[in-house]
Amino acid sequence: MTALTTREQIVTTADRLFYENGYEHTSFADIAAAVNISRGNFYYHFKAKDEILTAVIAARLAHTKTMIEGWEREAPNPEARIRRFMHMMIANRAAIKRYGCPVGTLVTEMAKLDHVAREDANKLFGLFRAWLGTQFRALGCGADADRLAMHLLARSQGVATLANAFGDDRFIRREVALMEEWLTAAVAHATPRPDNRRRQH
Amino acid sequence: MTALTTREQIVTTADRLFYENGYEHTSFADIAAAVNISRGNFYYHFKAKDEILTAVIAARLAHTKTMIEGWEREAPNPEARIRRFMHMMIANRAAIKRYGCPVGTLVTEMAKLDHVAREDANKLFGLFRAWLGTQFRALGCGADADRLAMHLLARSQGVATLANAFGDDRFIRREVALMEEWLTAAVAHATPRPDNRRRQH
Repeated sequence: MTALTTREQIVTTADRLFYENGYEHTSFADIAAAVNISRGNFYYHFKAKDEILTAVIAARLAHTKTMIEGWEREAPNPEARIRRFMHMMIANRAAIKRYGCPVGTLVTEMAKLDHVAREDANKLFGLFRAWLGTQFRALGCGADADRLAMHLLARSQGVATLANAFGDDRFIRREVALMEEWLTAAVAHATPRPDNRRRQH
Repeated sequence: MTALTTREQIVTTADRLFYENGYEHTSFADIAAAVNISRGNFYYHFKAKDEILTAVIAARLAHTKTMIEGWEREAPNPEARIRRFMHMMIANRAAIKRYGCPVGTLVTEMAKLDHVAREDANKLFGLFRAWLGTQFRALGCGADADRLAMHLLARSQGVATLANAFGDDRFIRREVALMEEWLTAAVAHATPRPDNRRRQH
C-alpha cells in the first residue's frame, strides 16, 4: 500500500501546484521537492510531467463525479441540485479569488499550450455541462436544457475570472444571487409548457 | 526611426506569442527567433522577458483606449456603445475560440505566477470596468452602474472561456444575443427611476 500512497501523494501535490502556480510554471523537480521524496522513488511512479497531468485530470474527474453524486443524494430536486452547483463558488471563494476556477484555468492553459491533454481537461467542463443539462431536462426545460447548462457554466466561469482579478467576495455572492434569480425565472418559464413537462427525458 | 520600429516589432510579436502560447511558455529566445533579429540587437531593446511584458501591457492599454475612443465617436449613444463592447466577442470569435480572451487569460496567468505585472494586467479589466460603468451611469443606472459593468464583464469572460473550451461559434452568438436582451431590460428598468435620470453623474 505504500506505493499507492506515494503515488496519490504525488498526484495530490501536483494537482495543487498546477492549480496554484500553473502547469507550465510547475516543474517535475518542483513536484518532487514538494512531495519530499527521492528522485529515484519519484521516477518509479512517473517518468514525465505529462504523465502526472494525466493522473491529475483523472483524479479531478473522479473527484467531480463524487461531488456531483453527493449533490444528487443530498439535494431534494433538480433545482436544489443546480443551486448546489452555484453555491460551490461561495464555498470555494477563497481559492477562486487567489487562483481562479481550477477547471477553467487548466482548460485555458491546455488550449494555449495546444497540449495533448486538452481534450481530457475539457472533459471536466463536459461533465458539468452534461450533468447540468440533465437537471434542466428534469425541470422541464427540454430542448433548452443544454443552452441553459452552457449559459450557467459561462456565468460561473466569468465570475471566477473577475473574482480572481479583483479579489472581491461581495461580487461572488451578488452574482450567485443573480444566478439564483435567473434559475427561478428559467424554471417558471419551463414548467407551464405542455411539451416540456417535469422529468421529461 | 529604425530603433523604434524594431522595438515595436518585438512588442507586437511578444504580444501575439504571449496570447497564443501563454507568457510562461514563451521564452526570450522564442521572441527573438520570431522577430528574426540578432541577440545583440534584441538585448539593445530589452534585457529580460519581464521588460517585454511591461511594454506589451502598456501597448494593450493604449490599444484598448484607442478602441474605446472609436466606439465613443462612432456609436450614437451609451447603449449602442455597450453593444459595441458585446459585439467585440463576435468580431474576435476566431481568436477567442483558439486562445480565449487576451485580457482574461493574461490576468489569470499573472495571478497564478504571482507576477509583479499582475496589477498592471488588471488595469486592462479596470479600463473596461470603468468605461462600462460610465456608460451605464449615462443610461441612468446610477448606483447600479458598477454592478452592471462587472456583471457584463463577467458574462463576456465566461463566454470566452467556454467558447475556447468547446470551439462553438453559435454559442458566442447566442450568448451575445442574451447580453443584448439583458441590456435592453436593464435600460428599461433604469430610466423610469426618478433618482436615476439619463446622463446623471
